[in-house]
Amino acid sequence: MDNVFDVKGFEQYAHDRLPENIAAFFSRGAGDEITLRENTSAFDSIKLLPRVLKNVEERSLSTTILGQAINFPLLIAPMAFQQLAHPEGEVATSKAAQDHNVIMVVSTCSNCSLEEIKANTNTPPWFQLYIYKDREITKNLVRLAEASDYKGIVLTVDAPLYGKRIKELHHPLTLPPNFEVKNLKNAGLNLKDTPSTKLAGYLASLLDPGITWQDIAWLRSITPLPIILKGILNPKDIQIAIDNHIDAIIISNHGGRQLDTALSSIEALKFASSVIDGKIEIILDGGIRKGIDILKALALGAKAVMAGRPILWGLAAGGEEGVKRVLTILKTELDMAMALCGYTSINEINEEVLCFSKK
Amino acid sequence: MDNVFDVKGFEQYAHDRLPENIAAFFSRGAGDEITLRENTSAFDSIKLLPRVLKNVEERSLSTTILGQAINFPLLIAPMAFQQLAHPEGEVATSKAAQDHNVIMVVSTCSNCSLEEIKANTNTPPWFQLYIYKDREITKNLVRLAEASDYKGIVLTVDAPLYGKRIKELHHPLTLPPNFEVKNLKNAGLNLKDTPSTKLAGYLASLLDPGITWQDIAWLRSITPLPIILKGILNPKDIQIAIDNHIDAIIISNHGGRQLDTALSSIEALKFASSVIDGKIEIILDGGIRKGIDILKALALGAKAVMAGRPILWGLAAGGEEGVKRVLTILKTELDMAMALCGYTSINEINEEVLCFSKK
Amino acid sequence: MDNVFDVKGFEQYAHDRLPENIAAFFSRGAGDEITLRENTSAFDSIKLLPRVLKNVEERSLSTTILGQAINFPLLIAPMAFQQLAHPEGEVATSKAAQDHNVIMVVSTCSNCSLEEIKANTNTPPWFQLYIYKDREITKNLVRLAEASDYKGIVLTVDAPLYGKRIKELHHPLTLPPNFEVKNLKNAGLNLKDTPSTKLAGYLASLLDPGITWQDIAWLRSITPLPIILKGILNPKDIQIAIDNHIDAIIISNHGGRQLDTALSSIEALKFASSVIDGKIEIILDGGIRKGIDILKALALGAKAVMAGRPILWGLAAGGEEGVKRVLTILKTELDMAMALCGYTSINEINEEVLCFSKK
Amino acid sequence: MDNVFDVKGFEQYAHDRLPENIAAFFSRGAGDEITLRENTSAFDSIKLLPRVLKNVEERSLSTTILGQAINFPLLIAPMAFQQLAHPEGEVATSKAAQDHNVIMVVSTCSNCSLEEIKANTNTPPWFQLYIYKDREITKNLVRLAEASDYKGIVLTVDAPLYGKRIKELHHPLTLPPNFEVKNLKNAGLNLKDTPSTKLAGYLASLLDPGITWQDIAWLRSITPLPIILKGILNPKDIQIAIDNHIDAIIISNHGGRQLDTALSSIEALKFASSVIDGKIEIILDGGIRKGIDILKALALGAKAVMAGRPILWGLAAGGEEGVKRVLTILKTELDMAMALCGYTSINEINEEVLCFSKK
Repeated sequence: MDNVFDVKGFEQYAHDRLPENIAAFFSRGAGDEITLRENTSAFDSIKLLPRVLKNVEERSLSTTILGQAINFPLLIAPMAFQQLAHPEGEVATSKAAQDHNVIMVVSTCSNCSLEEIKANTNTPPWFQLYIYKDREITKNLVRLAEASDYKGIVLTVDAPLYGKRIKELHHPLTLPPNFEVKNLKNAGLNLKDTPSTKLAGYLASLLDPGITWQDIAWLRSITPLPIILKGILNPKDIQIAIDNHIDAIIISNHGGRQLDTALSSIEALKFASSVIDGKIEIILDGGIRKGIDILKALALGAKAVMAGRPILWGLAAGGEEGVKRVLTILKTELDMAMALCGYTSINEINEEVLCFSKK
Repeated sequence: MDNVFDVKGFEQYAHDRLPENIAAFFSRGAGDEITLRENTSAFDSIKLLPRVLKNVEERSLSTTILGQAINFPLLIAPMAFQQLAHPEGEVATSKAAQDHNVIMVVSTCSNCSLEEIKANTNTPPWFQLYIYKDREITKNLVRLAEASDYKGIVLTVDAPLYGKRIKELHHPLTLPPNFEVKNLKNAGLNLKDTPSTKLAGYLASLLDPGITWQDIAWLRSITPLPIILKGILNPKDIQIAIDNHIDAIIISNHGGRQLDTALSSIEALKFASSVIDGKIEIILDGGIRKGIDILKALALGAKAVMAGRPILWGLAAGGEEGVKRVLTILKTELDMAMALCGYTSINEINEEVLCFSKK
Repeated sequence: MDNVFDVKGFEQYAHDRLPENIAAFFSRGAGDEITLRENTSAFDSIKLLPRVLKNVEERSLSTTILGQAINFPLLIAPMAFQQLAHPEGEVATSKAAQDHNVIMVVSTCSNCSLEEIKANTNTPPWFQLYIYKDREITKNLVRLAEASDYKGIVLTVDAPLYGKRIKELHHPLTLPPNFEVKNLKNAGLNLKDTPSTKLAGYLASLLDPGITWQDIAWLRSITPLPIILKGILNPKDIQIAIDNHIDAIIISNHGGRQLDTALSSIEALKFASSVIDGKIEIILDGGIRKGIDILKALALGAKAVMAGRPILWGLAAGGEEGVKRVLTILKTELDMAMALCGYTSINEINEEVLCFSKK
Repeated sequence: MDNVFDVKGFEQYAHDRLPENIAAFFSRGAGDEITLRENTSAFDSIKLLPRVLKNVEERSLSTTILGQAINFPLLIAPMAFQQLAHPEGEVATSKAAQDHNVIMVVSTCSNCSLEEIKANTNTPPWFQLYIYKDREITKNLVRLAEASDYKGIVLTVDAPLYGKRIKELHHPLTLPPNFEVKNLKNAGLNLKDTPSTKLAGYLASLLDPGITWQDIAWLRSITPLPIILKGILNPKDIQIAIDNHIDAIIISNHGGRQLDTALSSIEALKFASSVIDGKIEIILDGGIRKGIDILKALALGAKAVMAGRPILWGLAAGGEEGVKRVLTILKTELDMAMALCGYTSINEINEEVLCFSKK
């Protein structure tokens, strides 16, 4: 791991060590993976016009998201089944998040329980929620998050169905025996009779594909926690979210795992910028691999970004230490990108540093 | 066939099993195959901006084309000589079409007779017609279609000559002995003295390269069946078709098999959208390989799409079962695409889901 | 040669048989060969919107250039040293030109004499001229052309220096002993003392890099033959040519052999179309490999095209027969392209068939 | 070296001979090397529309930069540690610069001293300066340059930090024992206790990341020499430089070694052309590999260009002779490009020769 200097290196390192079906589950996308590829390539096609002679000796990367102070503008994306990457699972990720004082968003389908994860960090995590057909289980999950002092509910809205991921179909996930999904068990779901080979599919079948903005209102009515909607791309939906006083939006295409040829997330952010116009806090998810990616998302109006696969690759490469290394890489790269662009604090970053290539 | 999950997989599967000359006849295109490639790549460059929280639990894919109810908006393109793919030929395709209640368009040059094909399906097929120099044969073909209760005449207008397909020239088709083209025989054409190695060329030589809109009027005068013109790309011709009260148009470049560098069919649909403007039913043919392709064609104003090669690949892979599998894949992918875009019925699909990439 | 069906095939066939230095001399370009590649790729990026139902049974490809009737709108480009491709050299090319009734433009640096070449054809050729520092030799060359009843003087204006062709530098041309350049000898140039290995360079050094429009006026004053300027790309020079009543222009970048990254010739034609506007006859040279290329050049306003390398490849592949085959391929491909686009004669071809891709 | 005809050839030749870590230090870039690649590819995408019949027999490439006469519009970029390429180091480069009468910009981190370098040339070099945290050392460096009659101070402003170059991290530079950086020693910096393996990093740590336009004013106050700012891309900074009466600007992204995805330098020049508008002398640095590149930069408004890596490759290939050969290649290529575009002197070159491709 010592000879790995960037996230791309961690991707390679992790894939050299993971079984093919777990690598497929973590890293591959829907359909022909066009959105998966463009999530990263779209960042690369945005060109920078740095400023000079701005005195960048002292720099601060700290910022806030929904009023919560963080050391740099990155959240850890919710990702299921982290024990497939490392035995310590989400607890390892949580320790690294604490080390960097960044917010970890814990998946409903974490192996470790919300309580266990929170016990290892003083940086309050957020909780990623699906709305289940069974609203009692949904409500119980929210209660578990509240009980463990989670500070936000991230509701995933782009997964009424489980996307068609060809590589997963060719290399189906087989979960180990004694594999646990503790939150769902604690929320009252009986998974004992479900064989582990069918667990992932069974869990997907429990989700409610019928949810609407009225269900958001219901969720609003049962918890005082901030509600963040994850998986919005279309400016019309952003406008509805603003009109409904949603706390924050995560612009995301689910990492290219749901609808192939959906617009890349960074292009969606750009496309929606006039609707957003500072009226709602935006988190950009999808394709973050480098410090300059974070800077570009912020220049286009995001308050912070969210990274998923890079964290998993770090976790697979070296558990807590691996995640720390990945976070350090992204943070120091962002710090350098700011210095080289002439910025000394996060809130200075704006669109004047961008030059969209005409090519 | 069990490990094939998408049309691309069926293409590979079929090509691994077909002789090179039959694969060339089915799958290759004219010239340098630029149009052939762009028919599919042009779909991929259209980006989607899905909507969320629309309650997509219940979805219906049924629609109509020229008033005829179909289970999902896809027609099977007319393709000659289907016994080259599978011994059961067009009858197998017909059974699969019936199973999915989609319209099969039967080629003039089918091996099986119009009557045999119709006998195996309750879903009324359409008949693809060429206008032959010999108008009696042409008229007889129409009469055969009427007699077997076919519900539409699809007149191919983009093939005054047989396109130059380099791969076919390198791997010429040799038809098996006892190879029959029953409709032409039944219409009065004597093919006995034509050696099978020269049959395809001989058939092409019978077509009339001199047809004009006056011949369309003649065709209109001899049959009450709806007339659908196949092979129009230029908006000027679409306008003439509208002015002449043609029932429907199939926007098509003959699968990239006639004029290389002709505009891809999906771009032609987009280019002509202001002329079309709901004034005529449009079927989009060319490049359909995925459910999202169908959704995009409909978003751009098509009433339905037409798929050819995917059906042949399914037929070659597994006869009737293979075609059923391909149809199931396209239907379930369209269903998923609709759900993930926030649509519950076909007529909701519109251009607001599209974001044409500036790249 | 029987299994070669397109110009691309002839290129491969010839290169498999030619020594590397001759292949480099014939086929390679200046610098990084960007213009060389774009001369062909720029054609491919122009998309067609064919018309249908136009009665294309009878088609005529005949046209005129500067009043001279030709069987189809193609001229054979001037190319030096054709005996490097085949022992019969320019005489073989000339016979094929006669067979197709197309105009051959004979290079100043032909191996065979103007008189020998003309003796083998009834289709009057044109003569390609450089202006030499020695104006007497220049004048003598014109006289030789007049004496053999050549019908046009094609003056090359884009070669004040010999372009830097890296592949030629790596594989320098070594001319065989007894290698003759008869026209120059007949015009009074003593080449006896020049070793054949230095001949090409020596010939280039004789050209006058100082010529201006005043030299065009001088040339006009010494011959009544039509003057055609070869090697113009910039609309400003086209305007000057129009103002100076030049008979015709050959838009050309010397086949990508002079200034790398010069605009491709077909894009230059498009770029200059508003200046041209029918005021002068235009011949498009560079990148013609297919019948659709000819159709596109004509649609953009060219009166005819000029092909060079395809002829050389045919000559290398099979002498007179090879050139005939190449001409037949281009003619039948143009014929088919016209039929498939809805055209029956050359003068019908116009820009309405083009759809410039927005990609 | 005799079979090398272009800069690309010298790159290959040098890399075949250099140790991997020195090649990485010289030739690789920051991050994913997107800017590194686009610095050259952006030139290639600019298309030329040459003029003809302009009498280009006599051509002059001489010009001036800040009033200093040079034989052709190219400066040698400042590059550290040239003894890593060749034992004679900067002295060899200097001799070649004298031979061509072009200005060499000597790096602060040259191995040879300013005095040694100047002793070998009558063409006055310029001196590249960093502002060190220790302003005394900075001032001493300026004094050394003045004492040796250097004619310009090139202040690098785009390197507040040392860019992240992945290849260098994988192949770290190990400096030989007795490796000297004479200017810094002569300016009063004690490097004796710094092990050579840490020297590069240590030197970078001495730079002041806090400099602003006030430090430019301070520099202005301590020396009468012209001040040239190196490393500006953003038009806003160019405007400030104009407002502050800076003598000249070097548009540069540090050869793609600092901020990856920074705009290519030639696109930055184009982007800023309306701000520049002849108000300040511009030197274009980055991506110069061919004579046509120089012509394009001048057509876009640069007074001269700067080349770095090509010089290093020549130095590594053959010391003084290698550098001379590279300079000869670039000069003769520029000369040919001018002739083929219809130019006879540097100040004639303008944007009318450019046709920006719409592709």
